[in-house]
Amino acid sequence: MNNSEFDVIKKYFSFSSDRDDVVIAAGDDCAAVTVSPGKKLLITTDTLISGVHFPEETSPEDIAYKSLMVNLSDLAAMGATPAWVTLAITLPDIDEAWLSAFSLEFSSVLSAFNISLIGGDTTKGALSITIQAMGLCDENRMMRRDRAKPGDKVFVTGFLGDAAVGLKAVVGGLNDEKLSACVERLNRPEARASFAEELTQYVRCAIDLSDGLAADLGHVLDASSCGARIQLSDVPISLAARYYFIRYNISVTDWSMVIAQGDDYELCFTASTDDESAIKTLAEKHRLKLSCIGVVTQETKLEFIAADNEIMKFPDTGFKHFS
Amino acid sequence: MNNSEFDVIKKYFSFSSDRDDVVIAAGDDCAAVTVSPGKKLLITTDTLISGVHFPEETSPEDIAYKSLMVNLSDLAAMGATPAWVTLAITLPDIDEAWLSAFSLEFSSVLSAFNISLIGGDTTKGALSITIQAMGLCDENRMMRRDRAKPGDKVFVTGFLGDAAVGLKAVVGGLNDEKLSACVERLNRPEARASFAEELTQYVRCAIDLSDGLAADLGHVLDASSCGARIQLSDVPISLAARYYFIRYNISVTDWSMVIAQGDDYELCFTASTDDESAIKTLAEKHRLKLSCIGVVTQETKLEFIAADNEIMKFPDTGFKHFS
Repeated sequence: MNNSEFDVIKKYFSFSSDRDDVVIAAGDDCAAVTVSPGKKLLITTDTLISGVHFPEETSPEDIAYKSLMVNLSDLAAMGATPAWVTLAITLPDIDEAWLSAFSLEFSSVLSAFNISLIGGDTTKGALSITIQAMGLCDENRMMRRDRAKPGDKVFVTGFLGDAAVGLKAVVGGLNDEKLSACVERLNRPEARASFAEELTQYVRCAIDLSDGLAADLGHVLDASSCGARIQLSDVPISLAARYYFIRYNISVTDWSMVIAQGDDYELCFTASTDDESAIKTLAEKHRLKLSCIGVVTQETKLEFIAADNEIMKFPDTGFKHFS
Repeated sequence: MNNSEFDVIKKYFSFSSDRDDVVIAAGDDCAAVTVSPGKKLLITTDTLISGVHFPEETSPEDIAYKSLMVNLSDLAAMGATPAWVTLAITLPDIDEAWLSAFSLEFSSVLSAFNISLIGGDTTKGALSITIQAMGLCDENRMMRRDRAKPGDKVFVTGFLGDAAVGLKAVVGGLNDEKLSACVERLNRPEARASFAEELTQYVRCAIDLSDGLAADLGHVLDASSCGARIQLSDVPISLAARYYFIRYNISVTDWSMVIAQGDDYELCFTASTDDESAIKTLAEKHRLKLSCIGVVTQETKLEFIAADNEIMKFPDTGFKHFS
């Protein structure tokens, strides 16, 4: 077999797609697509590096899944419908079994979201995956970071902290069946795409929780020039994460794994009290846990309120890529 | 100083731009742009890895320049006007001098082509740069690989083989001033963007020469189900490359450096004889060397004809990323 780039692309990255807006996918200098009039094109890109963004022993299926999902989560956070992706993959060598598994999972996620792979690049080096995802959104329906208003309520989907617990389980080699749900959340986060698309009926301000609630909500508040008061008792923590805190003697008053670590890829958004009931109904329709965790304030500071009404501080929040 | 990802992006990758089609650039989950009705969106992505795609001692300016230019060359090869790019950069550490130099050159190329940097990702690891470039083109003006027709003439811009000679000079440590033009062509290829945009008046079939004439023209002929006869004596070779072949005793009948190596990023296109004169005038307007090197044939084979009318064979053509 001739292991050239062309063969790899042909064998592992040529997927069929039903999208009629793809004029040219692979096989030319560029891909070409049609953007519907009235739609904005939304673009996001994320690189995942082996040993940095996922442990080296992560399965090819989980790498394929997560590298797509973190990008789809960014599109969801703005209310865009995903449409096309490109994949720039750097591989240490041609491992047929690895590529087959990666390719199958990648294709499966694309199908589930009705996305076309329209291009990419294959290079040799340390394992690294850069995906660019493109989606479409009506301009007046985009959910932006700079649209939070004092008086809005703050919501999050799902549970926070599961990915942080999952990482502890993986890195610490904890062979504890009761934490498997958290490891699953770390490796296979879910972009809240279909919920987010409908959410744009009510919501103008959202972000996805990639760096942790404190950092990401902080970005929203910075961009919107306001603050927020978050009730820690309302922050949703899963049973598996609660089990971890008790079993491994993590103080319940140490919220940093829940608040200041990332990778949960849940949505955080702000909405008017008037729309709270409609939004809750929408979450139920999507079988999605939804929690109201606080309120947007005029004063430009982010406060986390503990059960005893003490204000907690998180000095160093979020994932620092160069720290 | 806190060397986090946010600081790097803010300090080195926040450029102003005059484009009014950018709704949101940096600072949200996605970038958002407006695609004009009637235009197709063209997308290309390329990864450059230190030690693979450029020697490790390459200057940050040359890396910034070339990583952009190879993508702009892909857009030019389809006749698209460049509009926006994203940059996913993986850095071994925060080297302020390196980042300053890279950033300045990157910004300068973007300005020259009226392109906005609308997003990206910064990660830690072995030096690697993935750029996705997006451009716009009228659908009926796209230059595709599958549009060559028997009887068309085959043209190339510039000179071929200079980058291959430049690479020999760099890798071989040849400290020969007379080869500096070839090293310059290796490090600083020029995307034929403005010429290509106007060329779409006459031409429906083009490719850029990244893997070498034999491989790239081969792609065109495969996609178009036809062949070509190329006169080697008409293939343009620069004075500097000719000097190299003589000075370093490379047989003038060994055409592999000119035909079967890449990185020249010149355009190769096919056109009707009727348009030859208009195309030559256009090339003169752009002060671009243009050579007619052969003709498209019905029979599906690519033949290179030497001066003695012998047909030359190039068994292994093009750059194999995994060989």
